[in-house]
Amino acid sequence: MRERPTDTPDAPLDASAYGFVHHIRVRFAETDAMGVVHHASYLPYLEETRVAFLRELGHPYASIRADGTDFAVISVGVRYIAPLRFDDQVAVHLRVAAASGARFRLGYLLTCGEAAAATAVTEHAALDRSGRPQRLPAWLRAMAATPR
Amino acid sequence: MRERPTDTPDAPLDASAYGFVHHIRVRFAETDAMGVVHHASYLPYLEETRVAFLRELGHPYASIRADGTDFAVISVGVRYIAPLRFDDQVAVHLRVAAASGARFRLGYLLTCGEAAAATAVTEHAALDRSGRPQRLPAWLRAMAATPR
Amino acid sequence: MRERPTDTPDAPLDASAYGFVHHIRVRFAETDAMGVVHHASYLPYLEETRVAFLRELGHPYASIRADGTDFAVISVGVRYIAPLRFDDQVAVHLRVAAASGARFRLGYLLTCGEAAAATAVTEHAALDRSGRPQRLPAWLRAMAATPR
Amino acid sequence: MRERPTDTPDAPLDASAYGFVHHIRVRFAETDAMGVVHHASYLPYLEETRVAFLRELGHPYASIRADGTDFAVISVGVRYIAPLRFDDQVAVHLRVAAASGARFRLGYLLTCGEAAAATAVTEHAALDRSGRPQRLPAWLRAMAATPR
Repeated sequence: MRERPTDTPDAPLDASAYGFVHHIRVRFAETDAMGVVHHASYLPYLEETRVAFLRELGHPYASIRADGTDFAVISVGVRYIAPLRFDDQVAVHLRVAAASGARFRLGYLLTCGEAAAATAVTEHAALDRSGRPQRLPAWLRAMAATPR
Repeated sequence: MRERPTDTPDAPLDASAYGFVHHIRVRFAETDAMGVVHHASYLPYLEETRVAFLRELGHPYASIRADGTDFAVISVGVRYIAPLRFDDQVAVHLRVAAASGARFRLGYLLTCGEAAAATAVTEHAALDRSGRPQRLPAWLRAMAATPR
Repeated sequence: MRERPTDTPDAPLDASAYGFVHHIRVRFAETDAMGVVHHASYLPYLEETRVAFLRELGHPYASIRADGTDFAVISVGVRYIAPLRFDDQVAVHLRVAAASGARFRLGYLLTCGEAAAATAVTEHAALDRSGRPQRLPAWLRAMAATPR
Repeated sequence: MRERPTDTPDAPLDASAYGFVHHIRVRFAETDAMGVVHHASYLPYLEETRVAFLRELGHPYASIRADGTDFAVISVGVRYIAPLRFDDQVAVHLRVAAASGARFRLGYLLTCGEAAAATAVTEHAALDRSGRPQRLPAWLRAMAATPR
């Protein structure tokens, strides 16, 4: 079975490649009977970080939604590198990997102390109230560090 | 500190006092680092059982919602008696404890094998689309085994 | 059907009766199709607040667990007063309502802005590694504002 | 921005390529304020299906864990095609895409009625109690339809 590459252009392992970081403390409710954070609990971490990122940009997601746009999740990928545990302080690094048309892609690196815990990529489509794709706002298209 | 009574009129420990039962298998995602089902995971079990109960009555909750009524949860109480574990088969017994005006109260007993695992009570208000209390449908008022 | 009292000795509606407060921002993942925070999502809010409270006391729950003690949840009660929504900033007020023997009881008030959103009570038992009740640590017994 | 392929060898869109199917009904707790199933809720669907698959093979995951082996999740990828809604009956199709050494990879197709709702791939490592990689059991290595 093929080894997965340990590094990807969208979600590199080098924290300095990310322009935003958000800190989350692990809840007990997010652990499982293996004694670590359940793999599904990472997705709300990514989401909370996206929301914090948009807020810092001056475009709170609640306002975006009130204006009639949703950023639907169209794909998610997570690579789990080292387990997270109850009460860990997790740094979630985020970067805009690509943005064009109605879609954008975000890369994430989760670290705990110095160690990489996970990388992730999410893809999103801007949809209007009737669920139709909508051109991304200019401020978001402008963010794509490395459009492709 | 007072001992809680082990039995209540709304949610008695005797399974024969309940008219409906629904079976749920514990997911691994619902466990926590104590190796047992996390206490918050019980609430979706109660909800799934309410939904199955309404379906069996011929009033699926999805239809009730499509007709403009929501059964908002106004209170929840759970007493945890014995832990549940991954892959356990849980029987959730349900009874209508009271129903009048815009409100009703349900009692639950969770068992695993012969043993009681938990009891619970939920209270609900029927709300219309604008969030105003709405008289309960007649079929639901008629179900209150022991109105008070 | 009896009206529930709007105020209880364990979890009063007056925020000044609580000695600790912790702030939580609502995640999108915690909402449901009614457009509000799902009722089960409140339990992790209470838990996160307990953990923050113990940390401030100088007794982080992760250390308590490492020392062989778990504070198992033996009952939970929540009264939902006004809905919470995505991105709301919630203040969770906490008080030790009672503590003696191996058990303690905590009261909570959730507020959003000036308004009360919910009250809650949780009961806990101190258990050793084999699951046997264990006398509460002295610092916790000493906290009970109104032992009874 | 590149379009993702609509079909992959690991998780094809053709249901007949899968040897196992498990049915799950959407819980209300799994929906979000967009009125659809939250994207994180799909991961427990995949997990429940894996567990049902192992049970049908005569190797319940609870027994595998009791024997000292965990199948840790090392990566997850989900592509969301069409939204799922409260009370939907979802068919989760599963196939073993690859298995060798200490690792295996599963492909999934989620359908609702005739329509594809999502595809997914999960990768797992067999670990012993101390967290060290462990050779996969022979029955699992033998399952890889298309080892590579």
